[in-house]
Amino acid sequence: MDHCTHYFGAGPAALPAEVKQKIQKDINLYGDTGNSILELSHRSEQFSSIITSAQSLLRSLYAIPDNYKIIFMAGGATLQFDAIPLNLVGSAKHASYLDTGFWSRKSANLARKYVDVKFVQGLIDSREKICCIDPEQWNVDPESAYFHVTPNETIYGVEFTQVKKTDIPLVADMTSCILMQDIDISNYGVVYAGVQKTLGIAGLSVVIVREDLIERVSETTPELLRYDLHVKENSIINTCPVFACYVTQLMLDWVKRNGGVKAMVEQANMRASLLYQAVDSNSKFVNHVCENNRSVINVAFNSSDNGVINNLLVAAKKEGLTGLEGHRNAGGIRVSMYNGTPMGAVHRLVELIAQA
Amino acid sequence: MDHCTHYFGAGPAALPAEVKQKIQKDINLYGDTGNSILELSHRSEQFSSIITSAQSLLRSLYAIPDNYKIIFMAGGATLQFDAIPLNLVGSAKHASYLDTGFWSRKSANLARKYVDVKFVQGLIDSREKICCIDPEQWNVDPESAYFHVTPNETIYGVEFTQVKKTDIPLVADMTSCILMQDIDISNYGVVYAGVQKTLGIAGLSVVIVREDLIERVSETTPELLRYDLHVKENSIINTCPVFACYVTQLMLDWVKRNGGVKAMVEQANMRASLLYQAVDSNSKFVNHVCENNRSVINVAFNSSDNGVINNLLVAAKKEGLTGLEGHRNAGGIRVSMYNGTPMGAVHRLVELIAQA
Repeated sequence: MDHCTHYFGAGPAALPAEVKQKIQKDINLYGDTGNSILELSHRSEQFSSIITSAQSLLRSLYAIPDNYKIIFMAGGATLQFDAIPLNLVGSAKHASYLDTGFWSRKSANLARKYVDVKFVQGLIDSREKICCIDPEQWNVDPESAYFHVTPNETIYGVEFTQVKKTDIPLVADMTSCILMQDIDISNYGVVYAGVQKTLGIAGLSVVIVREDLIERVSETTPELLRYDLHVKENSIINTCPVFACYVTQLMLDWVKRNGGVKAMVEQANMRASLLYQAVDSNSKFVNHVCENNRSVINVAFNSSDNGVINNLLVAAKKEGLTGLEGHRNAGGIRVSMYNGTPMGAVHRLVELIAQA
Repeated sequence: MDHCTHYFGAGPAALPAEVKQKIQKDINLYGDTGNSILELSHRSEQFSSIITSAQSLLRSLYAIPDNYKIIFMAGGATLQFDAIPLNLVGSAKHASYLDTGFWSRKSANLARKYVDVKFVQGLIDSREKICCIDPEQWNVDPESAYFHVTPNETIYGVEFTQVKKTDIPLVADMTSCILMQDIDISNYGVVYAGVQKTLGIAGLSVVIVREDLIERVSETTPELLRYDLHVKENSIINTCPVFACYVTQLMLDWVKRNGGVKAMVEQANMRASLLYQAVDSNSKFVNHVCENNRSVINVAFNSSDNGVINNLLVAAKKEGLTGLEGHRNAGGIRVSMYNGTPMGAVHRLVELIAQA
């Protein structure tokens, strides 16, 4: 039997089988430590090597310039929604946020505690069509502390890959697209991501920050939300999430061995192309996102007939294809395909969509 | 051969062997999910059951009254050092902190960003003797927002188990002693702990908070540091550290099956008694803490002869006994014995101390 059981959830996401096998082995005994990876001290040489290796892999995967620092922090992107204004507002009066949906609005709303927020129109949502994310139309106030964008929105499956370089620092929440988009880091002031979708398990974020920006930090920032301290202590300020950092190092290594970002983007495009073709070919289904902004990572679609959706979920579950329910705010079906998603599982799902 | 290889590190700490075996199994396949525990969604029924079970186990282990809420938060105790004043200061002008060493001073220093800190004298450190933590001597300003104590300090191995009930909320950092001290929760306003020493892996904290206190939260508190939101959302505000919560549930279950807090305290006393006897019987070693405040969890000792320390470390390593180096601020030897420490390993170490 073709083994195509797969979890398509939006995150925490599926890990590659070989990564899970390595973790099982290391839970028994990690390298020459004599102990389990679950017991590794954050002050050990071995953990220091894990952090250094993870930084070096990520730097090489994205050709990150030397004036950017890579840090790992406890907590997910929602904690960064507060950390971004606390670290970057400085003496500015406001910050600009591109509006592309649920997550960009949430990040902006949390920032309002510290700074006035100006929304920049991103998408036009006419209920029938979500479209037109056009960087040329972005009108960003040049006195903003920064301009925040969310290049992939997981709930409705909206993505953009081009940005306009601005005079103010561009800040991107790449939780659902890091290592799945080709990014020129030098366009950005800060790129951050919760790692649980594309490069690890829940409870950790990675932050890539241009070093001149870390001096802006507010003095009332909680110690563990300060980028400058994480840079100074190389991410080991306190007992950090050792195991989560270790899994991220394994994932970065896996991405590198499997062709790097270029290969990941190609595979994402192939998977998404199959999926959208199946959805577009079956008149029972509808996807509202215009072609240019269809996410290749999260494919969301719906049907005017709830029975069709339910039948598809039941048929998929029988095949071991799970995690396909749409976000509670959107309904329908959502197919999240991060880097651990095997093509075989996509093919099986495509067959079921065709038969629906 | 008697298997007595053991890691005595101060944290992240050793987990019981059967807990590690269960984790390995669940990384392959978790219950009826069809997936790995590493891929479990924070919005799944199964994760909801993990949280509910962990809360219920902890509530039963400490007979926690109904007017206390149990929440799990990303990050360790250092993040709580900021969360405590942000959540509890309200309109008060200052907060009081008992001074018992490094960790209590660190928690007080981080609180200074938000409130004036008044130190209450805890220990007397004459360099030759650390002693006299006497609750009857605590003179706490009744207008303080709260009174913060650290019942076990890991670096010099200082512990106290008695507190004086005060009119203001008593707040305790129990990172190194939760489930290893018999605690009457009703004496406290808040008990918090990073879980990586006695009940899990790094990257998660547990907070037990009296429900009337959550209304004091400052409006500029980062979303994920708010106790009130964690109570409202039952600890699942965002993609929380799913795997770390799962390990904590396993550890709580393990403690319950192994006799509960009473049995853990008894075993801690037995281990510590063996250790201190060995240290006191060998004139090459010295422990500066007075008898009443000797920690039964972290036993720290030193020698005027560095060679004796180094030889002991080398001999221990040969036997597979690791993690015994003193904290970088203290030097010497530190033996951290959390709930996962088997008596066999303690006996072997005691022999080496006698032979040193």
